[in-house]
Amino acid sequence: MQTPLAEIINIGDEILYGQITNTNAQGMSEALNKIGVNVVRHTVINDDENAILKALEEAEKRCDIILLTGGLGPTKDDITKKTLCKFFGTELVMNEEALAHVSAFFSKRKIEMLEINKWQAALPSNATYIKNSKGTAPGMWFEHNGKVFVSMPGVPYEMKHLMEYYVVPHLQNFFQTPHIVHKMIKTVGVGESYLADKIETWEDNLPPHIRLAYLPSFGMVRLRLTGIGDDVVQVEKDIEAEVKKVLPTIHKSVYGFDDDELPFVVGRMLANQGKTLATAESCTGGFLAYSFTQYAGSSDFFTGSVVAYSNEVKMKVLGVEAETLEKQGAVSEETVLQMAAGVRKALGTDIGVATSGIAGPGGGTETKPVGTIWVGYSDAEQTVATLYQLTEDRMVNIRVTSNLLIDWIRRKNGYNLKKLQVE
Amino acid sequence: MQTPLAEIINIGDEILYGQITNTNAQGMSEALNKIGVNVVRHTVINDDENAILKALEEAEKRCDIILLTGGLGPTKDDITKKTLCKFFGTELVMNEEALAHVSAFFSKRKIEMLEINKWQAALPSNATYIKNSKGTAPGMWFEHNGKVFVSMPGVPYEMKHLMEYYVVPHLQNFFQTPHIVHKMIKTVGVGESYLADKIETWEDNLPPHIRLAYLPSFGMVRLRLTGIGDDVVQVEKDIEAEVKKVLPTIHKSVYGFDDDELPFVVGRMLANQGKTLATAESCTGGFLAYSFTQYAGSSDFFTGSVVAYSNEVKMKVLGVEAETLEKQGAVSEETVLQMAAGVRKALGTDIGVATSGIAGPGGGTETKPVGTIWVGYSDAEQTVATLYQLTEDRMVNIRVTSNLLIDWIRRKNGYNLKKLQVE
Repeated sequence: MQTPLAEIINIGDEILYGQITNTNAQGMSEALNKIGVNVVRHTVINDDENAILKALEEAEKRCDIILLTGGLGPTKDDITKKTLCKFFGTELVMNEEALAHVSAFFSKRKIEMLEINKWQAALPSNATYIKNSKGTAPGMWFEHNGKVFVSMPGVPYEMKHLMEYYVVPHLQNFFQTPHIVHKMIKTVGVGESYLADKIETWEDNLPPHIRLAYLPSFGMVRLRLTGIGDDVVQVEKDIEAEVKKVLPTIHKSVYGFDDDELPFVVGRMLANQGKTLATAESCTGGFLAYSFTQYAGSSDFFTGSVVAYSNEVKMKVLGVEAETLEKQGAVSEETVLQMAAGVRKALGTDIGVATSGIAGPGGGTETKPVGTIWVGYSDAEQTVATLYQLTEDRMVNIRVTSNLLIDWIRRKNGYNLKKLQVE
Repeated sequence: MQTPLAEIINIGDEILYGQITNTNAQGMSEALNKIGVNVVRHTVINDDENAILKALEEAEKRCDIILLTGGLGPTKDDITKKTLCKFFGTELVMNEEALAHVSAFFSKRKIEMLEINKWQAALPSNATYIKNSKGTAPGMWFEHNGKVFVSMPGVPYEMKHLMEYYVVPHLQNFFQTPHIVHKMIKTVGVGESYLADKIETWEDNLPPHIRLAYLPSFGMVRLRLTGIGDDVVQVEKDIEAEVKKVLPTIHKSVYGFDDDELPFVVGRMLANQGKTLATAESCTGGFLAYSFTQYAGSSDFFTGSVVAYSNEVKMKVLGVEAETLEKQGAVSEETVLQMAAGVRKALGTDIGVATSGIAGPGGGTETKPVGTIWVGYSDAEQTVATLYQLTEDRMVNIRVTSNLLIDWIRRKNGYNLKKLQVE
């Protein structure tokens, strides 16, 4: 059958005020995509009868599944249930099972149940009651003109619980859902346009049930393949086949798949090779070290970093020559070569890398504008440097430099894509 | 006049797939609410012409302001501009200013500009071009039947930049929005409940047109005062009066106001006093150094950092005694005292600080569970240490440790609130 289409409607002022991020929509989307439901829209509205009615009407026109969260608490601004009655042309009736649950909830906590709490057990007469063991607001399942509407509380862990134990399995039963499979190919060191150009023929020849998206960030581009079909095993096979086809063209830029993170992957590679790493940072200012140390287990390969912001530290701790700093300046090939070799020696590691550049926004000159960044790499066999011309944005420069330099470590240490091979 | 109503439309498959949270909608909502615009809907749709057209039509019916993000990159899946042309009944024309910007972007980086990149400079003929100095995708401003439409790239920092420098001020000009005044009091080192308890009487007596919110994060709590009124000067005066009333109660915990950031404020304080700082980091792994170096001008006071992940570096570069490490362990009072004093000596600064702890998630023991973190402080007069018992979350531990230690530097160096006084 056809892929069912879903819309997620989240009711809540605090999202529209920008006070919280709408994590509910993300979690619900993820759960629906996993069972082959195509989420075509997220809608956020406030606790307003007209807004809710309008959203329900619009959603019903375009979707098979409409999931709502929010507006089910006992306070006055929670009007979802009344509005659902209006929408379906039904009315609220006390649900005995829900009332027993709410009563038990209060008596268990030895709190007196107020009249407004009882009201939580009144449901639209066409609702199937979904028990919420994490709270007092009920979940509700509606079938209407062949479509499914589900109303859930907005508290994230309550919603998540109802989705997992009831909504997802019941949707799988109700709809004969096709399967959606995602695969992410993660690249670094090449731009989106360059990649698009390289893989154009492959992209143009993708079968119609597989789509491609480019997701760029800070010197990296993720290629996301999405496949749809009735037979999950076949879709997975088709995607794997496409990945195998494209890899030879781009394999040097690929550092991993799916949830792989660049510093983590490169760190594991060094740890597996028994190599140790030290960093000497000027313009990255500690961010490069933190890229590695944010992950548990980084002490397996990461020995330490010298953030050498002043020339004195570059000389005293890293052994950069005074003459070099004076004649060529701190942002120069010769300086990063000495920094990379110097930190390797000072910290006694197999590999040393270094950064020195004009991160900006100030400090640029005619010959060395903001974004001029030298990086160095040193191991037992070589000590080399390269120049990046990046942006005028300090944060972007720091992040891109870190990613590109981590990629350089990867390339210099014979990172073998076969180890990453698609399962 | 009436409050203008806004809808935010974010175009992006990755949001509907649940792969990322829609942080753009949150940031945009926050910015609009600050200038008195009422955000009534968030809509997320995919890169599909019909979906975009439908969303634009619906939004135009109910709102005065329609902000779009996404779908502006050079690759094939980006169709926002073509769809905007269809919606407005216009066509794409090459914009010379945009083309010059895209060309400069590539030539500066010495990358060849491809044909698909040029296409980024073609805009609907009724668009006002908004230069995007953080990337190649342009911003576009449209006025249509008395309503404003804005299209921006979906990359969060590019969108944020366009919102701040162009969209928000132009919306303020275009619509006569009512006045909403925000004032943020920024505290560090005390908990939300402690603060709430201290300022309870003041909070209970706030005038009805001024509201208070507590916004906690990583060892800091921001107190946000929001005033609403027709007379902006009066609202500002009322808020200033409330700030003056509460400050004597909490001034020791206040490091700044509004956009002040803790590491920046403390860095400026040190620079003004002519003092220099070095950090020795174990568990914070470079994040503490980066907290300072993320800001331009940090070289005025920040000399450098030694990220001493291995015990060898602690001994060799920082001069920690082998006996101390052996008998007391790396996570101990004696070790951080020697690290703080050692980095001050090695880097020749006025102040040295140090961190050593079990950041987690592994590495905890019976006597030193995850979250056990020692920090040290050393200057010409004293070398002292203190112990924090934090959480089981690595990222939280790293951030809270950095903030609390930076606050310690602030308190130890006689930070004078008068210098921060409300303008």
